[in-house]
Amino acid sequence: MPENNKIRVQLQCPMPKLDFDVITLGHGSGGVLTNRLLDSGVFDLLKNDILDERHDGAFLELHGKTAFSTDSFLVSPIFFPGGNIGELAVNGTVNDLAMCGATPKYLSLSFIIEEGLPVKEFWDILVAIKFACEKAGVQIVTGDTKVVEKGKGDKIFVNTSGVGPIHPKANIRVKNISVGDKIIISGNVASHGMAIMSVREGLEFGSEIKSDTTNLNHTILRLIELFGESIHLLTDPTRGGVATVLKEIAQSSEIGIDLFQRDFPMDEQVASACELLGLDPLYVANEGLFIAFVSESVADAVLTALQEDENGQNARIIGSVVAEHPKQVIMESAIGGKRVISMLPGEQLPRIC
Amino acid sequence: MPENNKIRVQLQCPMPKLDFDVITLGHGSGGVLTNRLLDSGVFDLLKNDILDERHDGAFLELHGKTAFSTDSFLVSPIFFPGGNIGELAVNGTVNDLAMCGATPKYLSLSFIIEEGLPVKEFWDILVAIKFACEKAGVQIVTGDTKVVEKGKGDKIFVNTSGVGPIHPKANIRVKNISVGDKIIISGNVASHGMAIMSVREGLEFGSEIKSDTTNLNHTILRLIELFGESIHLLTDPTRGGVATVLKEIAQSSEIGIDLFQRDFPMDEQVASACELLGLDPLYVANEGLFIAFVSESVADAVLTALQEDENGQNARIIGSVVAEHPKQVIMESAIGGKRVISMLPGEQLPRIC
Repeated sequence: MPENNKIRVQLQCPMPKLDFDVITLGHGSGGVLTNRLLDSGVFDLLKNDILDERHDGAFLELHGKTAFSTDSFLVSPIFFPGGNIGELAVNGTVNDLAMCGATPKYLSLSFIIEEGLPVKEFWDILVAIKFACEKAGVQIVTGDTKVVEKGKGDKIFVNTSGVGPIHPKANIRVKNISVGDKIIISGNVASHGMAIMSVREGLEFGSEIKSDTTNLNHTILRLIELFGESIHLLTDPTRGGVATVLKEIAQSSEIGIDLFQRDFPMDEQVASACELLGLDPLYVANEGLFIAFVSESVADAVLTALQEDENGQNARIIGSVVAEHPKQVIMESAIGGKRVISMLPGEQLPRIC
Repeated sequence: MPENNKIRVQLQCPMPKLDFDVITLGHGSGGVLTNRLLDSGVFDLLKNDILDERHDGAFLELHGKTAFSTDSFLVSPIFFPGGNIGELAVNGTVNDLAMCGATPKYLSLSFIIEEGLPVKEFWDILVAIKFACEKAGVQIVTGDTKVVEKGKGDKIFVNTSGVGPIHPKANIRVKNISVGDKIIISGNVASHGMAIMSVREGLEFGSEIKSDTTNLNHTILRLIELFGESIHLLTDPTRGGVATVLKEIAQSSEIGIDLFQRDFPMDEQVASACELLGLDPLYVANEGLFIAFVSESVADAVLTALQEDENGQNARIIGSVVAEHPKQVIMESAIGGKRVISMLPGEQLPRIC
């Protein structure tokens, strides 16, 4: 979080005074302590008319085509350069809905807390959730808080699920991809994964590598508004990175993909960090990045529109869909060699999101 | 699961042959191993047209008032008499939706697995999920699978979130409760919590105490169809038990509740187990039980209808809403004494659901 936001948060969302400073098993009992925790400020912080009903579920109005998505977040460490597990959990589900061509509207929020988590850390996560929701224009409308014994969890795991109406102009489907489509990436690769890794490995670079976690829904919806069905597929290359997600798409749609390594945008420091740790940036997780498959006829216009957006300034066309080598992703390196891209074989970076 | 169902499961859902017998970190990578795990039989087992799209989210059609709910399940042990964490997770969210007066339709399913979980156990949980979904008439439409290192989780945690349309005749709101309303409980109390506790404590009784985990949606929707707005509030007394949930309702609606202990239905063995362990059954969790606040004029008819249902054979009227002592729940004991009922103060039975 930038420094001015931190100050804003401290002013707007001071931590409530409580008679406990760590979360205990009783806070997950569903009884007095759970209520005391939630009433201490959690409900006020996330306040909206739907959440205020405090029933077993939320009452929504939804009309027509709706997207529904879920993700559990167990990133370690829970605080990292550029964010924490709270905003990551909001942005992750917001972005999954956006990738369906939907306007994210309502999220559920479920915590699995390890006994002993400092309340201060829980509060900082909640505040990050609040601001991430405001930025994305979504509401937390229902939730759940559970606690596990020390050593049976790891600080905090967060699940968010979400729903939202699909934009009437959106028609996002793997089967819409066709030969000639251009593949556009919205920005620099590998920032999130390398931010986490640099903390874990205790690496120091010239300046801090920050996670790219952000909400992409406004950016995506603007593109859909402008280009409608010419946007064939949207996906965010989180776990497994760009390589894994493109290989999955090639396999499931039975098309071929050609990529050009020289066109991949990457921050120099991130590139150095990848090299230092022996990691291929194409397999490193991103949390504020998307890939669009678009009709060739609109590709340049999409790129221009994207580069005018705060989330797309480094956008590039990185490849295209070809009739040759169905199900295969082939990348031409900077020096002209070609290699076949496969999925991430095992676990490169555990607990990355 | 009854014996005949077990045989049916073994015949219908044989475990796929795999080249690994425990879940490893790589199965949560989002790469090759994740895909191999999911393609090994998980997608086939839970198969439906929406899930088959395998996009970042599911595409649904929803029209009008919709309920949305979430719950994370971390019951320990994950297998217990009467069920496992899989069906518990399906039934839990199905029931939360039903308590909103909704027909549960679509669920998300998110796993946090501790490295080392035997694939056989994962498969048994998945099969339980499949059959619970079929029984409740819901579909798993989107999901997520993550893995944490050994010692950073506990076998498996399951989050389900769900959506479904609210029945046009339903009008379930805390504020609809009024003086004179009768309070009906659908069956025996404390079975789930005592089933878990008897396993944890290694207790043996004449016959096994089984969890009451089941889906209540068909039962609830039948009542709503018959009695519409005369059903003012529905709630399922899970964590914290009957006492906590009634106290919460009294507080939030600012009404008074009178209960009669002699009218509480309870299995004799469960009662003995509670006594042996010094637990008050009113604070013990239930997973197949609900409480309805209904207009006095229909109370007897609701009770009769409920007693004809497989989930309501032991239903009773246990109390009523009174103008006296707002926000207080007062119980008259079997021998005529009165006591004030409070919420569960701390944690009585951790990891019960």
